Amino acid sequence: MHHMIDPDTALRLVLEATPSPEPIWLPLEEASGFVLAEPLCADRDYPPFPRAMMDGYAVCVADAGKTIPVVGEIAAGRAWSSEIAPGSALEIMTGAPCPPGSEAVIQKERVVRAGDTVAIPSDITHGMNISPIGSECARGKEVLHAGDLVSPLALACAATFGRVTVRAYRPPSLAIITTGDELVPVEVEPGPAQIRNSNGIMLTAMARAIGVREITAGHAFDTPDDLDAHIQRVVSADVLLLTGAVSEGKYDNVPGALRKSGATPVFHKVAQRPGKPLFFATRGRQLIFGLPGNPLSCHLGIHRYVTPAIWKLMGKGTERVQHRAVLGCRFNVKGSRTLFQLVRAERVGDEWRVTPCVGRGSADMYTAAHANALVRFSPDAGEMGEGAQVHFEFLDMWR
Amino acid sequence: MHHMIDPDTALRLVLEATPSPEPIWLPLEEASGFVLAEPLCADRDYPPFPRAMMDGYAVCVADAGKTIPVVGEIAAGRAWSSEIAPGSALEIMTGAPCPPGSEAVIQKERVVRAGDTVAIPSDITHGMNISPIGSECARGKEVLHAGDLVSPLALACAATFGRVTVRAYRPPSLAIITTGDELVPVEVEPGPAQIRNSNGIMLTAMARAIGVREITAGHAFDTPDDLDAHIQRVVSADVLLLTGAVSEGKYDNVPGALRKSGATPVFHKVAQRPGKPLFFATRGRQLIFGLPGNPLSCHLGIHRYVTPAIWKLMGKGTERVQHRAVLGCRFNVKGSRTLFQLVRAERVGDEWRVTPCVGRGSADMYTAAHANALVRFSPDAGEMGEGAQVHFEFLDMWR
Repeated sequence: MHHMIDPDTALRLVLEATPSPEPIWLPLEEASGFVLAEPLCADRDYPPFPRAMMDGYAVCVADAGKTIPVVGEIAAGRAWSSEIAPGSALEIMTGAPCPPGSEAVIQKERVVRAGDTVAIPSDITHGMNISPIGSECARGKEVLHAGDLVSPLALACAATFGRVTVRAYRPPSLAIITTGDELVPVEVEPGPAQIRNSNGIMLTAMARAIGVREITAGHAFDTPDDLDAHIQRVVSADVLLLTGAVSEGKYDNVPGALRKSGATPVFHKVAQRPGKPLFFATRGRQLIFGLPGNPLSCHLGIHRYVTPAIWKLMGKGTERVQHRAVLGCRFNVKGSRTLFQLVRAERVGDEWRVTPCVGRGSADMYTAAHANALVRFSPDAGEMGEGAQVHFEFLDMWR
Repeated sequence: MHHMIDPDTALRLVLEATPSPEPIWLPLEEASGFVLAEPLCADRDYPPFPRAMMDGYAVCVADAGKTIPVVGEIAAGRAWSSEIAPGSALEIMTGAPCPPGSEAVIQKERVVRAGDTVAIPSDITHGMNISPIGSECARGKEVLHAGDLVSPLALACAATFGRVTVRAYRPPSLAIITTGDELVPVEVEPGPAQIRNSNGIMLTAMARAIGVREITAGHAFDTPDDLDAHIQRVVSADVLLLTGAVSEGKYDNVPGALRKSGATPVFHKVAQRPGKPLFFATRGRQLIFGLPGNPLSCHLGIHRYVTPAIWKLMGKGTERVQHRAVLGCRFNVKGSRTLFQLVRAERVGDEWRVTPCVGRGSADMYTAAHANALVRFSPDAGEMGEGAQVHFEFLDMWR
């Protein structure tokens, strides 16, 4: 149990505690965006037959420059019934199998068709416009590897190979417990001392956006009993998120309730702004994040710690690309903790320009809602001028 | 009706033909990732009461340096029943409303509590650790604007304001008709002249990845009657995609069937590789894309023409960010058409490096499946050396 650790150590401890991804069988139509746990290999040669690449005529090269009879036609999907021999042409469509004996396919724009005969140009070569068996992909070839993303083209390969399921890493299940007696559901008119619960829907959307599907959400009151009951109910979730009640106040029941439930605390408090009172624990395979109730702290906790853990559980990389940018205005970094500042990144000509979304106070999510990116400032950055060089990463919805 | 137009003209014609986005009411929990059609305004002042920002004691500044009795406690969510007057302190929790008369909240770490009294430090100031009513956001303020993306923090704002629905631009409905007698469904063992249908699942995944939800998919045989029937059945879809049968061969029934169905052709054929025989038409509000059957041509057609049209229908911007990169190997651009080359973009130090996924022939999707980005080469680019400067855009799943 560490005290007030730095943000890099915190992320490292989270990822070290995150279990390896677990493979499952996914129906192909549900596999988009997941990561393959096993390679994808060709079930036969592709093309599986010598394929005509153009609409035209299958011929032998010996017939170059000659006018020969057209003895039949093969459309795509039709099997051939005869061979091609010198002195006869077969009309053929793109994607159709070239019959045995075919040496070239001549585009229909390059021949002169008259009745049942066709005049073949003289400059034809062996193999012209024919894609030979296995030339694009040989049977058994490992086309995609374990760890590859199931992209649209990967799905097309899998479908071509006849895969109705693929082995991929399963998305984790997620349980969300918001806490706070001051919170009412969004559809309830709040009393004078109450506000509406905004963390539940935000967390759900952030989790869905990165591929989590199984999400349960509940709200616990600020009593140890109610919190204990909620925590016990979600023991089987892969990831448990709690919001609020995570500091050291009288009603901050989350750390105590988690300890009581058998969770092993890993850290509490990270030297960062926002989101200092972040509590992280494990319970068997379950990862548990006690996030602050402040929406901006909660948002940063999901972006920086929960999301990489979920990516690891899904077999994905855990790092976001850092882009170079210039600061769009002066900015003064104060305080002794690392600052994760929400910014608006905009393309100006060939460079990115980031403008901090500086709100009125640490709970102002109204200004922060305009952000599409995040800049990390070390506590010693001090006063930075307009045009200063920084790095930023996109929030995941804008990646 | 233009002939063999350039890719920029083609995209412009597609976007000009694309109708303006249509607003609908979306339940808040389904609105993530959509675009607001109307502003989002604060329903009351935030905070709605003077909010304690720390766990501690609400006091008057006149009591600086004094030891005073603690006369009660207010937790978050509890309404106050009394006022604060000089000579008494009230224990208060983060998020709780400061009762009338409160002039400062002193953090519990900064006081000495002994029984029912508390010693207040001498350096306290008016307003300390109190967030005044409306200081973060005033009632009626337009917090988010029409055109803003419904991000996680935007959802949190909407929930805070009590919005159970938001006015957003609706995602278009999509109909997909694949064609080709050589194609069998993925679960069917193909005959010797057949291959499995891979375009249907690829198109569905690409559309879902950009937010389309209502998708119907069918397969038409290469007869005018079957195709006509399929086209008539999907007259109400906002966007209709057909694959295959779009060239000028004997069985390329798509352009004719579309004309017969009352569609107005806009263009046929674009000076690009892959995907030259792209047919684009409209039928009332419906956008119709006749895409080539070749999976790589189909993929490019969706990426470059269909996706921007769908983005416009959803109220989103239609341009992708261009990133600078260096070529990872020599590359020779041949031919007279603009080349859209699938590449693998990788971060090497502080720069991007792109390597073309050059397959064995124009139908090799097996090599192309490793791509995560796209580079546009003009036909006159010629021979380019390793390290040459290029621009690329990410494929949407990797953005």
